[in-house]
Amino acid sequence: MAEKLAMGIDVGGTNLKCAIINPAGEIQQIKRAPTEADGGRDRVLKNLKRLVRSVLEVAGIQASDLAGIGLGTPGFIVNGGIQGAPNMPGWQGTPIEAIMKETFGVPFFAGNDVTLAAFAESLFGAGRGSRNMVCFAIGTGIGGGLVINGQIYEGTNGMAGELGHVTVVPDGRPCGCGHRGCLEAYSSTIAIKKIACEMLAKEKYRDSAVLKAVEGDLGRVTPKIVYDCAKKGDPLALKVNKIVCRHMAIAIGSIVNTLNPDCIVLGGGVLSAGSIIPDTITAQLDDYALKIMRDGCQVVIAELGEDAGVIGAGALALEKAGLLPRES
Amino acid sequence: MAEKLAMGIDVGGTNLKCAIINPAGEIQQIKRAPTEADGGRDRVLKNLKRLVRSVLEVAGIQASDLAGIGLGTPGFIVNGGIQGAPNMPGWQGTPIEAIMKETFGVPFFAGNDVTLAAFAESLFGAGRGSRNMVCFAIGTGIGGGLVINGQIYEGTNGMAGELGHVTVVPDGRPCGCGHRGCLEAYSSTIAIKKIACEMLAKEKYRDSAVLKAVEGDLGRVTPKIVYDCAKKGDPLALKVNKIVCRHMAIAIGSIVNTLNPDCIVLGGGVLSAGSIIPDTITAQLDDYALKIMRDGCQVVIAELGEDAGVIGAGALALEKAGLLPRES
Repeated sequence: MAEKLAMGIDVGGTNLKCAIINPAGEIQQIKRAPTEADGGRDRVLKNLKRLVRSVLEVAGIQASDLAGIGLGTPGFIVNGGIQGAPNMPGWQGTPIEAIMKETFGVPFFAGNDVTLAAFAESLFGAGRGSRNMVCFAIGTGIGGGLVINGQIYEGTNGMAGELGHVTVVPDGRPCGCGHRGCLEAYSSTIAIKKIACEMLAKEKYRDSAVLKAVEGDLGRVTPKIVYDCAKKGDPLALKVNKIVCRHMAIAIGSIVNTLNPDCIVLGGGVLSAGSIIPDTITAQLDDYALKIMRDGCQVVIAELGEDAGVIGAGALALEKAGLLPRES
Repeated sequence: MAEKLAMGIDVGGTNLKCAIINPAGEIQQIKRAPTEADGGRDRVLKNLKRLVRSVLEVAGIQASDLAGIGLGTPGFIVNGGIQGAPNMPGWQGTPIEAIMKETFGVPFFAGNDVTLAAFAESLFGAGRGSRNMVCFAIGTGIGGGLVINGQIYEGTNGMAGELGHVTVVPDGRPCGCGHRGCLEAYSSTIAIKKIACEMLAKEKYRDSAVLKAVEGDLGRVTPKIVYDCAKKGDPLALKVNKIVCRHMAIAIGSIVNTLNPDCIVLGGGVLSAGSIIPDTITAQLDDYALKIMRDGCQVVIAELGEDAGVIGAGALALEKAGLLPRES
């Protein structure tokens, strides 16, 4: 049985996660440890190796019993090395595949964390049964992952899926990337807070439930508070939701017209607000997506939660070993 | 030798084209005939079969000598039948693959005409050597074709690549699809003419070379005249070009950020204007595409001209027969 298991690793800026995954996407063992990214590359690698050994020990197996190890990381992978992970000093350029292959002596594959989470959702989560799926990861920024013909799609240089930087309003709101009008400037958690605060500063919203919830202190506004108020019918919060979802609908509409996917998956903490978000997006999608393609495409909430990344990393190793069950 | 040849067919609203193609993408024989789309399905099929037989006769081969036949058509293919070709009455629903397979007794495959033209460009034209390529076909509308990992990408229902309906300006110019702000409403040949005429109606452009070229008759303005004047430095024509290319850059930027392609190919008669179009797009692309992905992506003019469709159709049949040379 053990030879049909893989290990998945999720490298986050704060924590490392490591799990044993079976071909049904089930987690057999999982452990966490601090990343200590500030400690630089060697510290992160040390923590990573120790965590892997610890999970193997708890699971009672050897590395050589695994079909392989997969790892998801911020940034992207070029020739087995890590590029473009600005929040992890020293991580840039790390030849992670070579290092880990040598240390553990099993096949090792790395990929972008959001892309691997999308892969997991397409196999075992909200996108089960889909062939072409696009996943939006909504956080302080907006990331994306693409699954094309049932396979991870990373693009020519491993950088595909920068969905937060799809232009939704030419000359629109400034974005952290230096451009204007990016999706991220309208629908990320930072944008939700910013848009709500701008509106709350106006006279006509001084009775908003959001303002009451934060006792007048705009610094305390969070997406959760906005959505809690929206679900209770607060006009300002509903208006913020409509703006957020309208710009998501513009981006999704263009992606639907381009890629004709069967499923759009929305992930990230803000989706704990529930169906109000996909419902509002879907209601506006007809303004942007061609009906014939829109009818075949569902907008759904991610199901695997915070473990999607580690499951997807394990699934990558299983896929490379030919161990994922596939409909033909 | 004959068994390494395929036939390509390009079904247009006005003309049918049929050619014998070798694995280098070279046309061995080519013939044209009127489509007579107004005559309905049976007339089109009769013309098609007669043209195929005529090309086989001229080439001195039997259908059974072919590796297969590929066909490109407006609309898209679902289960071997044609859907969504509004300009060809009766063509809708035609089970083209079954009919042609039965008539000629060889493998037969159909696909969207723009997608097959894009495939040809990726193999033998402007996109040679590219792995991930997006093709814009600029005409009265704007179509698109996608090549992903070296393969034709048609999406879940065969409808991918409706690039003319990517939203570039929310609530912008009305589009024929019923939406507003689609790329097609800014950068198609109809849009070029419309935008030029709107500007020419203004006092400040009464000295424009475009107005002189049409002797004051706005009904005679064409994209060719606009671009001829732009290349001579006419301010109005240059401004029209900038608007057209800016909206192309918005759409291309979002596609680059999403798909991380290595090549964007621009096709259509308006590209006979030459490098002014890709150059103006490229100059504006930095405002919309992330630099790291934009640097790896060229914007180039299609090379195969009007024969791209028929070559791509033949290439589809060769591909299905495993006869296309591939780098691994």
